Amino acid sequence: MTGLIGKRVPKLDAPKKTTGETRYLQDIELPGMLHGKILRSDRVHARIVRIDTDEAKALPGVHAVITAKDTPGVPLGHGKDNTPLKGDKVRCIRDEIAAVAAESEEIAEEALRLIRVEYEDLPAIFSPADALKEGAPVIHGKHPDNIPFRFDYAHGDVDAGKEESDIVIEDTFTLHFVTHCCMGVSGVIADFDSSGNLTLHSLTQIPFLFKKDISPVIGVPPGKIRVIQPVIGGGFGSKLDIYPFEPICVFLARAAKRPVRIVFTREEEFVASPTRQPVELTLASGVKKDGTLTFRDVRTLHDNGGYTSWGATTPFVIMQTISSLYRVPHCRYHTTVVYTNNPYSGSFRGYGNLQATFAVESHMDRLAEAVGMDPLAFRLHNAQEPGETTLQGMNFDTCGLRECLETASAKSGFLEKRRAYRSKQAGPVRRGIGIASLLHVGGGAKIYRTDGCGTILKLDDFGHATVMTGSTDIGQGSETVIAQFVAEELGIPISAINVVNNDSEITPWDVGVHASRTTFIAGNSALRAAKKAKDKLLAAAAKKADLSADGLDLRDGHVVDAATGKPIVELGKLIRSLHFTQRSDIVMTTEYYEPPSVMQDREFKGNVSASYAFGTQVVELEVDTETGIVRILKVTAAHDVGRVINQLGIEGQVEGGVVMGIGYATTEHLVVEEGVVKNPSFRDYKLVTAPETPEIDSTFIETIDPEGPAGAKGIGEAPAICISAAIVNAIHNATGVRFTELPLTPERVLRRLKEERE
Amino acid sequence: MTGLIGKRVPKLDAPKKTTGETRYLQDIELPGMLHGKILRSDRVHARIVRIDTDEAKALPGVHAVITAKDTPGVPLGHGKDNTPLKGDKVRCIRDEIAAVAAESEEIAEEALRLIRVEYEDLPAIFSPADALKEGAPVIHGKHPDNIPFRFDYAHGDVDAGKEESDIVIEDTFTLHFVTHCCMGVSGVIADFDSSGNLTLHSLTQIPFLFKKDISPVIGVPPGKIRVIQPVIGGGFGSKLDIYPFEPICVFLARAAKRPVRIVFTREEEFVASPTRQPVELTLASGVKKDGTLTFRDVRTLHDNGGYTSWGATTPFVIMQTISSLYRVPHCRYHTTVVYTNNPYSGSFRGYGNLQATFAVESHMDRLAEAVGMDPLAFRLHNAQEPGETTLQGMNFDTCGLRECLETASAKSGFLEKRRAYRSKQAGPVRRGIGIASLLHVGGGAKIYRTDGCGTILKLDDFGHATVMTGSTDIGQGSETVIAQFVAEELGIPISAINVVNNDSEITPWDVGVHASRTTFIAGNSALRAAKKAKDKLLAAAAKKADLSADGLDLRDGHVVDAATGKPIVELGKLIRSLHFTQRSDIVMTTEYYEPPSVMQDREFKGNVSASYAFGTQVVELEVDTETGIVRILKVTAAHDVGRVINQLGIEGQVEGGVVMGIGYATTEHLVVEEGVVKNPSFRDYKLVTAPETPEIDSTFIETIDPEGPAGAKGIGEAPAICISAAIVNAIHNATGVRFTELPLTPERVLRRLKEERE
Repeated sequence: MTGLIGKRVPKLDAPKKTTGETRYLQDIELPGMLHGKILRSDRVHARIVRIDTDEAKALPGVHAVITAKDTPGVPLGHGKDNTPLKGDKVRCIRDEIAAVAAESEEIAEEALRLIRVEYEDLPAIFSPADALKEGAPVIHGKHPDNIPFRFDYAHGDVDAGKEESDIVIEDTFTLHFVTHCCMGVSGVIADFDSSGNLTLHSLTQIPFLFKKDISPVIGVPPGKIRVIQPVIGGGFGSKLDIYPFEPICVFLARAAKRPVRIVFTREEEFVASPTRQPVELTLASGVKKDGTLTFRDVRTLHDNGGYTSWGATTPFVIMQTISSLYRVPHCRYHTTVVYTNNPYSGSFRGYGNLQATFAVESHMDRLAEAVGMDPLAFRLHNAQEPGETTLQGMNFDTCGLRECLETASAKSGFLEKRRAYRSKQAGPVRRGIGIASLLHVGGGAKIYRTDGCGTILKLDDFGHATVMTGSTDIGQGSETVIAQFVAEELGIPISAINVVNNDSEITPWDVGVHASRTTFIAGNSALRAAKKAKDKLLAAAAKKADLSADGLDLRDGHVVDAATGKPIVELGKLIRSLHFTQRSDIVMTTEYYEPPSVMQDREFKGNVSASYAFGTQVVELEVDTETGIVRILKVTAAHDVGRVINQLGIEGQVEGGVVMGIGYATTEHLVVEEGVVKNPSFRDYKLVTAPETPEIDSTFIETIDPEGPAGAKGIGEAPAICISAAIVNAIHNATGVRFTELPLTPERVLRRLKEERE
Repeated sequence: MTGLIGKRVPKLDAPKKTTGETRYLQDIELPGMLHGKILRSDRVHARIVRIDTDEAKALPGVHAVITAKDTPGVPLGHGKDNTPLKGDKVRCIRDEIAAVAAESEEIAEEALRLIRVEYEDLPAIFSPADALKEGAPVIHGKHPDNIPFRFDYAHGDVDAGKEESDIVIEDTFTLHFVTHCCMGVSGVIADFDSSGNLTLHSLTQIPFLFKKDISPVIGVPPGKIRVIQPVIGGGFGSKLDIYPFEPICVFLARAAKRPVRIVFTREEEFVASPTRQPVELTLASGVKKDGTLTFRDVRTLHDNGGYTSWGATTPFVIMQTISSLYRVPHCRYHTTVVYTNNPYSGSFRGYGNLQATFAVESHMDRLAEAVGMDPLAFRLHNAQEPGETTLQGMNFDTCGLRECLETASAKSGFLEKRRAYRSKQAGPVRRGIGIASLLHVGGGAKIYRTDGCGTILKLDDFGHATVMTGSTDIGQGSETVIAQFVAEELGIPISAINVVNNDSEITPWDVGVHASRTTFIAGNSALRAAKKAKDKLLAAAAKKADLSADGLDLRDGHVVDAATGKPIVELGKLIRSLHFTQRSDIVMTTEYYEPPSVMQDREFKGNVSASYAFGTQVVELEVDTETGIVRILKVTAAHDVGRVINQLGIEGQVEGGVVMGIGYATTEHLVVEEGVVKNPSFRDYKLVTAPETPEIDSTFIETIDPEGPAGAKGIGEAPAICISAAIVNAIHNATGVRFTELPLTPERVLRRLKEERE
């Protein structure tokens, strides 16, 4: 015990990142390494008639030029409807046609310019509605209806729910394209050794599934693939699938018999990395006069783009919020994912929940207004209590939703301000305040039959510990949190811990970084491995000192008397006394932690996560009714995080998530016109930067999850989820105008305000 | 079970070494890395009056120049009588005076030339005999008698033994300087991160002890030191201590705030890397008329050179052969290690046993002759049997000495040829055949209170295994042997195994590569870790198939019915079925193997190794009596290896050892005159190369050691040990002349033959 839990612990990787020591993918130079570049389609739907690579191949310094005919063409990606290189036709702007490995990036680019591609354009589709029309062009032959995926969910009886309702409202919400904007662009290095073993220096968030998934695509057995992850400059879900550039890099390395590195340009990152999935969501909700929710009836239509990556599965997360954010006695949910010739989307922090919560929490305000309740009282009336199981089967063993609502509203002065801002404001700049809450998984998500994470813990003779964890740090700070758990358990300083988390050959299996699971799952795994080590150490100390192990603890680098804190033996000395003896031993433990969650059943029901995160965010803002500019003044966030592990890290997670959510709501928009990305640069794609960042007041509700490590839940995604709803609710408070479409650019805001005035 | 044990398995690292993929220390370039060079003394015993580094510091491209006054001067090395940089006086030619870190090796060398050192010469000593003279110059003030180390050993009663003897003979044997001649020269990279953690890319054979030993010298806690071993181009014991260049490199890195690499030149390697310790050994032996050995009485005088590294401890290994090679009822051994101003020595394959066995096995021939027995019969008469414990306390649970003698002599036609060659031969070229045997530790050596090795084993979902072992592969092939053990136990192909053995942060503790211990100790550790994994897998399979685990085995990537070999389930499938379930688990095991040996008691008695290796080598040669050239025609070797694990690897070990032993006996000589190395290059230092390598016929006696992994013993050092005695015995057979001094250069041989003729 070192009293580390809940403290402000700087990220372990911060010094190296600050000093420039960190070596990113871009900094890795392998002997003989070549540079790979990909020729992408400039058409969105076209038949490939001919590809001529002769000139490119003849360019000095070029070692390999490949097209689809040089590769096996095994399908890849979540939907297995894509191939690394396209030989027959292209379906969206980013499609990969050919690739080059050359001695420099410049030569590779020159070679790309020498490749001639002849296309025959096909009629294209740019909206789900058009894709569903009778006689629409078919994008994938296997899906003549252009629908790769649809399903229905229900609980209760929505028709009965409608009957019970005193008020029913319905809206359609339209959500747009945004993209991750990781500071570190995509890339990979493929490196075969002479025995055919492949090392991939990969930025993947899922090293172990990656091995399995890429194996058939490249024809290398998974056991011969080693995934080493350089420091990852942001993931946010963008690196959860296999994308064509990864096998392409392998094919280039094989063809050139040299290591090959592909690193995207920033423009390529905008065009050819995944997006958040656009969706049109029609939500009908009902309520009784007393403010009790009766039903939700939802239809979603998803723009899948040209191929099916993880974006297509966001309906599952949308479903959870629809079914279970507040008590919903009756629920129906129909979702349709539709091919278009737009860019295709992947997973993205929040994973559909930003879209769902935008709709649900907009409606909560409308319903409250309809029954004459204030938004806080209405939400509290419908909020679940700890111990409830939702009708989709989620067990809220702990549930801080009520405290989040109360805390965020009290700290922000929500009710008072809301009342004040409703009265006619003078001048063109109007203030408003809005509230919204969220539900998200907080204890992993059992998407696969295992949601586990392995740990190997090894102590050296001096009380220094190596923690080999399967989990990946993509910048979220999991390395630090894992080190805290182990340090706390072993009573050693965090500087005595090294977390090894980037080599599939060494680290034990983990399902990957997604679903806000790392603190919970990898944390539990590391903590349990540390507990085993602690048990061994205390038993050894007890034997040595002829005491009971129950009365001992580890603190400040010593075995101590648990009651008095009196030091009994220095930890390193104890380890050495265990080690340097006739029957010597060292301290190594292993753990594979599997959370007590279950996969959803055929009706999509079941306790898919071992814990759930809740949160409420109140946004105070100004709307300039003359320019349409929305200025966020303050965000008051209250999150049920189970327990704070790293106060500094969790504040960072909330601040990062809030800023990301504000960007989603107000400034960020990947402009796609006729399938073409129109703003592939940071000049034209507007991220929220420091000057636009409001004051953020974070409070953490500690519900102490019984399964969570030291009581913690995962909240990596949560802070980004509900802010867009809070923003539109605040704009409504300020102006009386309600928005159902994002982003809230000055142009859109001004146009709507004008329309309302007219 | 894959039937791998005893097969000819190519070394796993061979493809990379063959294709040039292997990255040695010389190939590692860290960002911002500087190049370190060391200024060494050109005096052998002198007071340092003044060091002027001003000009060197002013040279553009120089980042740091350090002398003793810039460093804490904490003593280092086995004897703790050395410091990284010398500030007061120098004691031998290699002494480190100053060091430079610069942007290139050329600049660093230029800077060294700009450093001015003023010395005041002191009277010097170049032989142990001179060092012991009254009034001899004192080399270390702490040892006014110039004796850093001496001890006495005895068993039985030598005086009584002399009484019992019918014949007593005495000889003095003089052994010379040789050096390891690793193809990869010495070097290190020191790299601090911004948090003060130190990574050493080190060629050490003892990564874990290295961390501990270098820590006080450089003032970095051991827990903050990570030792990563690049591929090591040969060790042979030379990398068993800390040498001044290693902390010097750390000091340079600290001063320059940059990573620094020091790599020796070949000349530097000859001058400033350790040697085999020269010794003058006086051996008196007695025998009864019936051929029974009665006693050995030995005095050794060791030239320690200027400092005390591991060379000073070779008397302990010499002692074992003196006391226990054949039955020796009475034994006395007095050893004295003496400082001189010569280069100082380290450990070197065989570790004193080459010197001891040269003497003992020369005497065995002389004693046999004296009692009229043939050398084979005489040795067999005195050879131990399995189950005997020697009077020094070594338990020969298995002992193949008799079979080694019988096999080597029978296969070589020893007796017949010896008889034939004794008769007068026509012409100047005379043939001879000689025999000698050896005893060496074969199951580790308990020098420290633990002689153990840790293993972490991890299986992936596809039946690929990572074995993290503490043991280091310095070229001896241990990686391959460890992989064989695990492959055999898990019934998977060796290509499905990756051995990780070069990073102290990841691999569990091991005492280091010495004492021929790796196959035995690390092999046992890996095998036991694999057995645990096997137990888990068979239990899972048994449960799944409702069978008894006892009836199951692992073969060819499957769980099979042990009796019929019928496959029951594919291994990867079984692992996945264990993994992808509600209560999922993965296969990871750990093991720390400690051999059942003991440290010697105060009388130097005890079973210091868990097993012992024996061997007999017969050498057939020609002596050109006109030129003195000795040409080795054939070596017939029979070694008790417990059990062959890798037939190809063990043949390589025998061939390498035989060639090294032939070099020691005939061509290799580090010529040291007045403390100065006169032949620091491969042109003047004569290694045995391919054309001089004789036919080598190796037979392996498999005594199946009960403690050894699959019955194996360690034999890394054994093959080099007895060949010099076999050579002098063969020369005696050819010419009637007996040599007691090495090397048998043409000059020396011719001179002796002439003396005998006169």
